[in-house]
Amino acid sequence: MKNKTMEYKDKILHLIDQRKLPETLEIFKAKNYREVEMAISDMIVRGAPAIGAAAAYGVVMAAEEFIEFDDFFKKMDKALKELNESRPTAVNLMWAIDEMKKVIEENKDKNHIEILQALNKRADEIYQEDIETNKKIGQYGNEIIPENARILTHCNAGALATVDYGTALGVIRAAHEANKNISVWVDETRPRLQGANLTAWEMVEENIPATLISDNVGASLMRKGEVDVIVVGADRIALNGDTANKIGTLMLAVLAKEFDVPFYIAAPITTIDFDIENGDEIEIEERSSEEVTHIKDVKIAPEGIDVYNPAFDVTPWKYIDGIITDKGIIRKPYRENILNLKE
Amino acid sequence: MKNKTMEYKDKILHLIDQRKLPETLEIFKAKNYREVEMAISDMIVRGAPAIGAAAAYGVVMAAEEFIEFDDFFKKMDKALKELNESRPTAVNLMWAIDEMKKVIEENKDKNHIEILQALNKRADEIYQEDIETNKKIGQYGNEIIPENARILTHCNAGALATVDYGTALGVIRAAHEANKNISVWVDETRPRLQGANLTAWEMVEENIPATLISDNVGASLMRKGEVDVIVVGADRIALNGDTANKIGTLMLAVLAKEFDVPFYIAAPITTIDFDIENGDEIEIEERSSEEVTHIKDVKIAPEGIDVYNPAFDVTPWKYIDGIITDKGIIRKPYRENILNLKE
Repeated sequence: MKNKTMEYKDKILHLIDQRKLPETLEIFKAKNYREVEMAISDMIVRGAPAIGAAAAYGVVMAAEEFIEFDDFFKKMDKALKELNESRPTAVNLMWAIDEMKKVIEENKDKNHIEILQALNKRADEIYQEDIETNKKIGQYGNEIIPENARILTHCNAGALATVDYGTALGVIRAAHEANKNISVWVDETRPRLQGANLTAWEMVEENIPATLISDNVGASLMRKGEVDVIVVGADRIALNGDTANKIGTLMLAVLAKEFDVPFYIAAPITTIDFDIENGDEIEIEERSSEEVTHIKDVKIAPEGIDVYNPAFDVTPWKYIDGIITDKGIIRKPYRENILNLKE
Repeated sequence: MKNKTMEYKDKILHLIDQRKLPETLEIFKAKNYREVEMAISDMIVRGAPAIGAAAAYGVVMAAEEFIEFDDFFKKMDKALKELNESRPTAVNLMWAIDEMKKVIEENKDKNHIEILQALNKRADEIYQEDIETNKKIGQYGNEIIPENARILTHCNAGALATVDYGTALGVIRAAHEANKNISVWVDETRPRLQGANLTAWEMVEENIPATLISDNVGASLMRKGEVDVIVVGADRIALNGDTANKIGTLMLAVLAKEFDVPFYIAAPITTIDFDIENGDEIEIEERSSEEVTHIKDVKIAPEGIDVYNPAFDVTPWKYIDGIITDKGIIRKPYRENILNLKE
């Protein structure tokens, strides 16, 4: 993308403020790790791989801040913990924090400046690797996209959800670059409208033919045979293939099964949580009721109504035709094939 | 309801302006049939039974307007046609217009004042009958609602969608009045948000426990066993039971089948279109893209994105466990049982 989702320069993490899109392209400058934490929890930056990379730079910024303190390690511990808790569902965040923790561990006998340099190097690697990872996901995913495919996607698993290129939208970009004459159905994705605000914006920016729909339209399109394949991202994948992703993913997966539409997850292998057997163990973030009762400050619901606002749902493995990763497409049986991948 | 959805007095049709809810309770005064037509097409009044009753008064108002014209019948023909075309999917509108047409036909040799009186009488009957019809739907529907039921509903098939009491919400009102300790999951119903704006408002007004959700949350609730029954309204029902209703209904019906949740339609028998064999013959209204790209004047999508905005979808009969009508609950085989009902 011509605009960078995030960029770390002059000790400041520059983030496209995704709350402001598509109206204005504004850069939020996180000047310390607390502001990175806030940027993640407030969804200035969102998308599992993007928050992983942003958190890695958050750790670098904490090290910058605490470099001259005697209780450097204690302060770093606290910062790592705070960043780790900025959002609960995406495993990439925890993965990135763990990677940074390892760097501190490995360098704990060196001086603070050397530790900082090592952290910065690892954050840069996570950043660069994410772009390469997404390109690979795009390459593998392109194989399952037919010519003239009408692809339905949900939320934003795009350049904005990653460092660049995207996971589900990486597959779409790759198919578009391969001149397959594809077009995209964009679920608006209530309540935060990442589809309408972000995916639609990316599609317009890249001149990829795309049509915005309400989340409840896909069923009718699938029944009429107007969806050839569904590709969405993921926030956490269990060993058995159960996948947590943006609320509404389960709905699409069930509809896809009913109407014989192939349903794919696209995610880096860092999205796989090798520590959990199935989706029941995934914590689902509940967000504030205002996300449902208000749209950008406009009130759409009456005073006094209760609200339930889960940010994610879990799609059982059986509905998923394949998980497109940077190591290839994982098929059933998932547990076996996921464990093979680790070796 | 303590506020009347519509009321015809002093030759003016008073309508709750449903575009303004839940923020303000404002009465729109339609002073001639063209304003009634506009009120229907602009969704000041909406819901299949409500637009039927409103259109009937529109015909009365046309007769008032043209009573002294020599080409009374020609002018009435034109008014009937215009009212009939104000929205294309709901059959109750066409039914009400047909009823008024019959009155003109039967009284065509009388003078214009007598015709006007006959029309006014028939419109009042349609109005009154709708209330009684909904009470009966509530009574029959209550039979299939278990104690402590968590009922999911979509759009607004409530007092606001009818003259009073509602169809799907009529069932919910009846179960609540029977002290069954029910609670309601309210789909917000994009793009027009009739669930958030109207159903949530009715539930708060009536003190019925209700929780507002995005349309894409139901799947996850059903998977976790937190929905006991789904009841929605209808805009048109074909002889084979195929049902056109608010966009998103098909999604719910498929999910209900997958997760073993009973799925019911609630509608007066005037919603059955005895002239069509199946849902393929139902015209689906497409509405403006602004309904999707804007929420109450707030823009949520980028310039240049295409939009597809169907107002309804068709749910095939096989997903429907029963159609709750004012003549009882119709079960499969629908064609046979619907035709029996007519006799």
